Amino acid sequence: MSINKITKNIINTMAPIIKKHYDYIVIGGGSGGVASSRRAASYGAKTLIIEGKRLGGTCVNVGCVPKKVMWNASDLATRVLEANEYGLFQQFPLTKENLTFNWEQFKGKRDAYVKRLNGIYERNLTKEGVDIVMGWAKFNKDGNIEVTNPDNTIDVYSGDKVLIATGGQPIFPYNIPGYEHGISSDGFFELEKQPKKVVVVGAGYIGIELAGVFHGLGTDAHLVIRGETVLRKFDESIQHTITDHYVKEGINVHKTSKVTKVIKDATTKKLTVEINDGAEILEDVDTLIWTIGRRSLLGLGLDNVGVKLNDHEQVIVDEYQNSNVENIYSLGDVVGNVELTPVAIAAGRKLSNRLFGPEEFKNDKLDYTNVPSVVFSHPEAGSIGLTESQAVTKYGAENLKIYNTQFVGMYYAMLTEKSPIRYKLICAGPDEKVVGLHLVGDDSAEMLQGFGVAIKMGATKKDFDNCIAIHPTSAEELVTLR
Amino acid sequence: MSINKITKNIINTMAPIIKKHYDYIVIGGGSGGVASSRRAASYGAKTLIIEGKRLGGTCVNVGCVPKKVMWNASDLATRVLEANEYGLFQQFPLTKENLTFNWEQFKGKRDAYVKRLNGIYERNLTKEGVDIVMGWAKFNKDGNIEVTNPDNTIDVYSGDKVLIATGGQPIFPYNIPGYEHGISSDGFFELEKQPKKVVVVGAGYIGIELAGVFHGLGTDAHLVIRGETVLRKFDESIQHTITDHYVKEGINVHKTSKVTKVIKDATTKKLTVEINDGAEILEDVDTLIWTIGRRSLLGLGLDNVGVKLNDHEQVIVDEYQNSNVENIYSLGDVVGNVELTPVAIAAGRKLSNRLFGPEEFKNDKLDYTNVPSVVFSHPEAGSIGLTESQAVTKYGAENLKIYNTQFVGMYYAMLTEKSPIRYKLICAGPDEKVVGLHLVGDDSAEMLQGFGVAIKMGATKKDFDNCIAIHPTSAEELVTLR
Repeated sequence: MSINKITKNIINTMAPIIKKHYDYIVIGGGSGGVASSRRAASYGAKTLIIEGKRLGGTCVNVGCVPKKVMWNASDLATRVLEANEYGLFQQFPLTKENLTFNWEQFKGKRDAYVKRLNGIYERNLTKEGVDIVMGWAKFNKDGNIEVTNPDNTIDVYSGDKVLIATGGQPIFPYNIPGYEHGISSDGFFELEKQPKKVVVVGAGYIGIELAGVFHGLGTDAHLVIRGETVLRKFDESIQHTITDHYVKEGINVHKTSKVTKVIKDATTKKLTVEINDGAEILEDVDTLIWTIGRRSLLGLGLDNVGVKLNDHEQVIVDEYQNSNVENIYSLGDVVGNVELTPVAIAAGRKLSNRLFGPEEFKNDKLDYTNVPSVVFSHPEAGSIGLTESQAVTKYGAENLKIYNTQFVGMYYAMLTEKSPIRYKLICAGPDEKVVGLHLVGDDSAEMLQGFGVAIKMGATKKDFDNCIAIHPTSAEELVTLR
Repeated sequence: MSINKITKNIINTMAPIIKKHYDYIVIGGGSGGVASSRRAASYGAKTLIIEGKRLGGTCVNVGCVPKKVMWNASDLATRVLEANEYGLFQQFPLTKENLTFNWEQFKGKRDAYVKRLNGIYERNLTKEGVDIVMGWAKFNKDGNIEVTNPDNTIDVYSGDKVLIATGGQPIFPYNIPGYEHGISSDGFFELEKQPKKVVVVGAGYIGIELAGVFHGLGTDAHLVIRGETVLRKFDESIQHTITDHYVKEGINVHKTSKVTKVIKDATTKKLTVEINDGAEILEDVDTLIWTIGRRSLLGLGLDNVGVKLNDHEQVIVDEYQNSNVENIYSLGDVVGNVELTPVAIAAGRKLSNRLFGPEEFKNDKLDYTNVPSVVFSHPEAGSIGLTESQAVTKYGAENLKIYNTQFVGMYYAMLTEKSPIRYKLICAGPDEKVVGLHLVGDDSAEMLQGFGVAIKMGATKKDFDNCIAIHPTSAEELVTLR
């Protein structure tokens, strides 16, 4: 045995060799991790980003991006169904009965687009000088980062500062017999064929978006929810308007319902979904999708460094994204709080500003109040600030003035079937400061951003009224509320 | 001859009988007049509104409303052409070649909608207690208002205060031989059949909107403009993006061109349109539309009361809408300034607040700065504040920071033909106050309203950046500009 070999053996059994040292190691190549690592590198910090699956994380690969692409297809299908009534292409009966969607072909295009984005993420990181390692990372006992490469070899990196930005993943209801015959939202994006009949379980935004997409594309869509309304975390105006419209347009909404058993036919591969202990049976189901929640993606050897988690197994951080361990930070879905891509991006950039940026950023942190968010339901919904009930709790009903409007958009004046528009503006105190804005209706997502800027600036009702309306739009109703 | 008859004769030949006295007489039942009269009546003022044509004025009858309805149809046609590429209805070839539009049927629906709105205007006025008289009004020598009724009888009304809100009308180029074979935008709304080939003259927003609508609905559309670009009053980014896209998508844009002669074939009724003294000849034209400007609608006997006009024959008013004659006011298109429906509405309400409202409104007036406006081109464009060249003149280039972005929207990632998106944010001074925002791209109209509120509040670039992005949208690019 040569000296070399002996040395190597000793090293293997003793402390592993550090392959490279970094100023900043980011675990997780999703929205937050990518943004933070690029910003850090832009300040000259030697930065490594480690990703186990695909760059871009949930958002790009199994979240916002492919979801919006599918929503666009579904929304376009709805528009096409309106064409004949608009006098267009009347030689072709563009009806629900005739609706077809080439799912296979479209999925190919969608996947190619996502792949292009993965490439753009990689190029942007490289351009900024960030090193990229594809593999699964964990903290070892020395506090260094051990990465299992795709070929199962292991490399170890050390970093002055480490960011945990590993995101989350969908959960399954392990206690329901046959749960394993269902898929999650991740599985939705793998579907090669359009199911004829689908059951979506869950009233959160993911379930509502998927059920809407399926229905819009012509699938017989069933939605199983525990309560009476969907989107329970949103203002009641949104809950009721979307729930009622989903029912009206033909989505089979099973209210106050739970799936209690799932059976798969070995021959036909079709599922039988039992609801409320057999009170209802859904047969011939092609696809069952669980959208009942998400949890943090961990398995990072956090015990080795003592990083603390909360009861939901989310990394505990303060308002500066500091974990309880010095030089270890966390943000994005793995810490919970506001689980949105732009929030993770903003938090990631601000953290790097603070850690590696100029003096002016030494106290930079993300303000998590008044974050606008939208749901790509049919029609869209959007929200900023407090719901009405939250506002009542915080300010007292007597200190609130609430403006509501509901109308038929001009586009729908030419159509038999109307899509609802419903806006609510919640104002508090004698100066009527805007503390909540809740929208349902076409274009809500694009509409909300600018109002978000105004509300974040502390807009009052008077500020809304001071802006001249843009006519004819739906948004103008928000600056002429009485 | 009875005493009565004698009295009547004397009165007829002397001063006419005053039929009724009002606190407030509004001449013109368009957007501004209706808004002002309703607001006045709501304060208890005895109010009369006089309209010669149809309630709602330009906006409802021959402007914003039917225009947007047509734009909706045209925009939907474009969407349907994208359906096959989106995997939808591939059994039907939804191509440009197969595009059909049932103009006759759709015009019927559109007219019915406008008629419903006329009725709503009438009911709202009546509900508020405003008297309505249909007829043509003018000031007589006593300063009273003489109305020629539809049956040619004349009634006279007296008012403590009178508002002139008669709006405007399209102009024709009387010096061009054969100009009378062309129609105006008013005539566009009377077209019972879709022209196969149309020539629109003018680079202003009306011409651009009509040319876009025709092209979208499958008409061979020609646009004749004097300069190199359309929308010359807008920022250069809008001018160039829309001009280039119109050319790219197949609208025949004739630049640096003037129509010099129009000939109508007596048999075929087709027009021959000569451009630049015969340098170009457009034959077999079904419809020629002049959109070369508008002028005030007058003929009101203003000489009788001494109300002054400017060189453009617009009523001269101060910032409170006062004319040079006490108790005579004017607003809306008849005074020029910012010729937009919501501006007339806001000015009308504020005037009535000031004249008839509580003490707090005694100095109420409209602030004409930072009025957002949009163009329903394909794609839409929207603008607030200064253009870049205006900003350079006002602040100096060295005191400006200008942010630009141009990108392909996610919707178009699945399509071969892309519609452009181009945003420009103009900031001035060390605090980067936003002094101009210019948008081109889908949904710009709905998107702009909220940003309008923020800019009117005095938003800076930092205020834009402070708002978390809404993902995935186009609007989010406006809060992440670098």
